Amino acid sequence: MASEIYLDNSATTRQYDEVTSLMADVAANNYGNPSSLHTRGIEAERIVSGARETIAALLGAQPSEIYFTSGGTESNNLAVIGYLDANPRKGRHVITTRIEHPSVLEVFRHLESKGYKVDYLDVDGNGRIIPGQLEEKIRPDTALIGIILVNNETGTMQDISRIAAIRDALNPQTVIHADAVQAFGKIKLTPARSGIGLMSLSSHKIHGPKGVGALYVSKGIRINPLFYGGGQEGLIRSGTENVPGIAGFGLAARMTAERTQENLLKAARLKQMLIDGLASSDIEHRVNSPGDALPYIINISFKNVRAEVLLHHLEQRRIFVSTGSACSSNKKNRSHVLAAMNISQEWIDGAIRFSLSHQNTEEEMRLTTDALKDIIPVINIRKKSRAGRNI
Amino acid sequence: MASEIYLDNSATTRQYDEVTSLMADVAANNYGNPSSLHTRGIEAERIVSGARETIAALLGAQPSEIYFTSGGTESNNLAVIGYLDANPRKGRHVITTRIEHPSVLEVFRHLESKGYKVDYLDVDGNGRIIPGQLEEKIRPDTALIGIILVNNETGTMQDISRIAAIRDALNPQTVIHADAVQAFGKIKLTPARSGIGLMSLSSHKIHGPKGVGALYVSKGIRINPLFYGGGQEGLIRSGTENVPGIAGFGLAARMTAERTQENLLKAARLKQMLIDGLASSDIEHRVNSPGDALPYIINISFKNVRAEVLLHHLEQRRIFVSTGSACSSNKKNRSHVLAAMNISQEWIDGAIRFSLSHQNTEEEMRLTTDALKDIIPVINIRKKSRAGRNI
Repeated sequence: MASEIYLDNSATTRQYDEVTSLMADVAANNYGNPSSLHTRGIEAERIVSGARETIAALLGAQPSEIYFTSGGTESNNLAVIGYLDANPRKGRHVITTRIEHPSVLEVFRHLESKGYKVDYLDVDGNGRIIPGQLEEKIRPDTALIGIILVNNETGTMQDISRIAAIRDALNPQTVIHADAVQAFGKIKLTPARSGIGLMSLSSHKIHGPKGVGALYVSKGIRINPLFYGGGQEGLIRSGTENVPGIAGFGLAARMTAERTQENLLKAARLKQMLIDGLASSDIEHRVNSPGDALPYIINISFKNVRAEVLLHHLEQRRIFVSTGSACSSNKKNRSHVLAAMNISQEWIDGAIRFSLSHQNTEEEMRLTTDALKDIIPVINIRKKSRAGRNI
Repeated sequence: MASEIYLDNSATTRQYDEVTSLMADVAANNYGNPSSLHTRGIEAERIVSGARETIAALLGAQPSEIYFTSGGTESNNLAVIGYLDANPRKGRHVITTRIEHPSVLEVFRHLESKGYKVDYLDVDGNGRIIPGQLEEKIRPDTALIGIILVNNETGTMQDISRIAAIRDALNPQTVIHADAVQAFGKIKLTPARSGIGLMSLSSHKIHGPKGVGALYVSKGIRINPLFYGGGQEGLIRSGTENVPGIAGFGLAARMTAERTQENLLKAARLKQMLIDGLASSDIEHRVNSPGDALPYIINISFKNVRAEVLLHHLEQRRIFVSTGSACSSNKKNRSHVLAAMNISQEWIDGAIRFSLSHQNTEEEMRLTTDALKDIIPVINIRKKSRAGRNI
């Protein structure tokens, strides 16, 4: 790790070594199928139950409210599609925001193709929805509101209590689905107390294994499965349980929860170092993440810089960052999140996401700031084009 | 392993140690998100591509024909639902068999609820479909035939060339989906040559990790995704790729393929030992698996025995077997497979599935036969009821 600086933790994290060890141990010694009736099956089932209890306890939920999935994307889909499919009488109107992760946004686009009426909430310059607009949009036939708790590109947090209060006042039947993939393990989440009916979690964003996630479904809410089979996970998610992966997720969740507060303070300190370092330099930039964003994600635009070029220059120094959401970066899309925040195209073109974990250090922030100071003057578009004219 | 005899390999297998090591290595050193644009992302993407090439090569397929999923259940669902959803004009009639795995059978039940007409093919006493019946059922609007290549309860193999020939003659537009979860790694599969359009694979049945599977989709066949998001896997399967799991699946597939023939001969030898051992005893039994079944699965009914009771007695000697499909065993269902084979309820009640892997030994077969000889006279239902009358 000393030889590289990984600042792309919102795309994915390095798995805890303890998680890797536990998964290897489970794979070697508890390899049964939880559906098998013998000891090897029963012990596998116990491992799954243990992880379920861990996750539930962290959310102040019941174990029966937690369903394991293959990840955040499946959880988001299962929540929204599964709820609407199981509750056709709740209405054909749904609400989401313009700044959702593709695994929510694309679900709503799919719903539009199926005849649902979708309202996409605007956000302000800080990436927050405008409560008055939500008030206007909620209707008697609004079945669901899908909202990203912590935005994956900017770290912007939504005021979920306010959103739930508006829902309670205008249509208590409307269910709130929270995409908590970037929030889980970083802030305390208590969905029942917050009025959240459905909530998606992912393991690989908190140093757990890839290929594992969970969906919280509040007691009393019915959802239908996305696919069919042996009826595992209370008939909601068929398929042999990924026992080592689920065990690893449970351990990663526990390890992360044990130092949520300490990690958050560290992230805030590291964020401030980066921001201060740039402020005291003569690099022209714009911090797109609001001051009260979750400090793990720092979105910064550099003037007269193409983000892809900066990314590759940083990479040559083994500093790894992202130009936005990893999940859509391979499609060369412009950031729909920054666009929704009304940030100009010029600034969007130069936007980099630095995303932190407790594994990052102050020294790494210093090295990153120094690298930016070195690289940016060299890759300045205007400087280059002037140089071009001289040839 | 010496202290236990694991004969439930069709439910799940013990992961190869080499796979566990590789997965730990990938998790520690190649932990990037394949969608990230930097080196850490690119190397992760390369690992996924490498596994894709391995699986494709084993099937005589192109890498672009392989889509990674979370397992066999998801693959089966994606194949059937995804194909019908993408090809509404191919018809609303589908055909499957009475002996499918729940992850196929439940999909067809779901299709019935959506207005599809489903024909369920009968099987003969060996568990094989009757070609004449298939000929009768294929119609101009038959969109898909779903068929399990190797049955998970009995090891019965279907004659896929014959099935494909009938399809070719009667409706070449009909796509064949093969559930190859129990076949992959055990017999050579070349879907293109066999006329198979869609084929499901699972990792954890071949000593790979749980939570990983693949779907072969023949070039030119269009399918729609089951869920939406970042557009990974050629837009067909969104969600951050389970890089260590996919790497592990690739290695397990390669390791299994390297000794397919050797393993098959060993399984045949072990199967014969069990059958001969019982034949030379005075245990009243019936071998439900046909003589030419894939030898990894041996389904045997014991007279006047309740399978669950025998399972628990074997378990006390650390011999692990199943009463049927692990995936439905927790629902206390009677075996729909044995019922379709017209086996009487009395024999079904006493049916045990012994399922082998190359990790099993001749010594284990001897110990298992000896255990059966010890246990069965003790748990004989008729003997017990007579004893009851004496009290």
